[in-house]
Amino acid sequence: MAGRTARRRVTRIRVGDSAAGDAAVSERADFLAAEEPLGIRIGGQAVSLTMRTPGDDIDLAAGFLFSEGIIGSAADIESIRICDGSQCGHGHETGDEMGNIADVTLRPGLATELRRNFLTSSACGVCGKASIAELRVPGRFRLEEDRLQVPASVLAGLPDALRRAQRVFERTGGLHAAGLFSGAGELLAVREDVGRHNAVDKIVGWALRGGLLPLRGCLLLVSGRASFELVQKAVLAGVPVLAAVSAPSSLAAELADDAGLTLAGFVRDGSMNLYAGAGRVIPAR
Amino acid sequence: MAGRTARRRVTRIRVGDSAAGDAAVSERADFLAAEEPLGIRIGGQAVSLTMRTPGDDIDLAAGFLFSEGIIGSAADIESIRICDGSQCGHGHETGDEMGNIADVTLRPGLATELRRNFLTSSACGVCGKASIAELRVPGRFRLEEDRLQVPASVLAGLPDALRRAQRVFERTGGLHAAGLFSGAGELLAVREDVGRHNAVDKIVGWALRGGLLPLRGCLLLVSGRASFELVQKAVLAGVPVLAAVSAPSSLAAELADDAGLTLAGFVRDGSMNLYAGAGRVIPAR
Repeated sequence: MAGRTARRRVTRIRVGDSAAGDAAVSERADFLAAEEPLGIRIGGQAVSLTMRTPGDDIDLAAGFLFSEGIIGSAADIESIRICDGSQCGHGHETGDEMGNIADVTLRPGLATELRRNFLTSSACGVCGKASIAELRVPGRFRLEEDRLQVPASVLAGLPDALRRAQRVFERTGGLHAAGLFSGAGELLAVREDVGRHNAVDKIVGWALRGGLLPLRGCLLLVSGRASFELVQKAVLAGVPVLAAVSAPSSLAAELADDAGLTLAGFVRDGSMNLYAGAGRVIPAR
Repeated sequence: MAGRTARRRVTRIRVGDSAAGDAAVSERADFLAAEEPLGIRIGGQAVSLTMRTPGDDIDLAAGFLFSEGIIGSAADIESIRICDGSQCGHGHETGDEMGNIADVTLRPGLATELRRNFLTSSACGVCGKASIAELRVPGRFRLEEDRLQVPASVLAGLPDALRRAQRVFERTGGLHAAGLFSGAGELLAVREDVGRHNAVDKIVGWALRGGLLPLRGCLLLVSGRASFELVQKAVLAGVPVLAAVSAPSSLAAELADDAGLTLAGFVRDGSMNLYAGAGRVIPAR
């Protein structure tokens, strides 16, 4: 887990009985979740900079490009290299950037098309979309065709399974995670990151590179809340069920409904709310 | 609070005793935190699209531009209008975009400078920085000069005060918030948003437009985790203490240390960890 956590000296204060004004102060070493920038370049041109927890960076880059609709399959990628400073050859690296650039080469036809339509635009580029019309990335897989039926008891058990698998969270006490499960609730993959969207991109990139897309019959669980962006990533990856430990947003629920995704929120303490696609969930076992 | 929440029908499932296989299913109406895109345009050119909870959009746009280093004071802004579709006049609006575009006019000199240096670049633009070197926005205020001393008991009391003021959270059960407090712990402003960075930008924009920057002697509390980005926003706004209910990242702690910001994490249940600037916190009352 080198590089995913950083050790830091902290001062811990426990405020005592307020009448007495006592407080316990201690110094100790603590582990923090590592946060570092990852720049993504296509053919040498910077397209995105995301703050992420190092690790699975090739999957992250692949998942990001897929979630943004830039690539549609693993075959669109010729190579992804994580630069160590000396090898990139674009002349931009400084010490700080070592290990923090994903240098992507796309298949030739796609690279040309992308350059014409996209990278030469003066607008915001890949990550910060310039217009609201660009917001929805058209999906390649039809979720309505996924006939998965999942017992509510399986969904209810996912958060505990995810937490048990979160090794970095264990050390640092605070980190987002995404877990991919079979329809029977078996954990297939878990990824942790300071950004929930990165954790999901790491799962999607791993699945893309392994030839597992669409993720038919699978369940995706995210720690915390479910936003529009996470629902979109789930839809694009063809996973029929997205579960979140906390609340979804209004737009997350709307997009899930439109796309035929089952969206469960507040999956905790043996209960859940279904905001879309409730038909896939069987209440009793 | 119109527009900040959306009503939605949900199916609630409570998984029963697993031996019996019972489950309680109910239908009910629920409130979700609204999430909608806000496009920010400078002189008609799109520079950013952020997913946010509607409300305080002018503050959000102002705070975003300040946090990105594009403007340095309220005087740099000639006007910010929230477009209702018919008034923007750029010919790009559709029905979906009504009310979701902040149209910014900067003072003439700054607009020209910005166009030359920034908007015509082929890189990612404002929101998705293109290179790691651009990541740190230079600050205008020197936090080391802020001699604030704050009792640990005051910091420990902030999360309860923030939660009591979170009206949207109350209805929806899940939303980020940022609260600005005086050094004595009095709540000055609270903003809620699906994005923690937006909640902070709304606070910063409100302070900028009200002539309150730098926020000397103040305390900023964020729900959830503290990332590099949030520390940077606090530093730029000149607030000497950032407190978070959950964990900070490694880079958040490093930047806080470099900038002279007091960074408290895990502020909950009467205790806290200090990751930087511990000298401003008085353990006993």
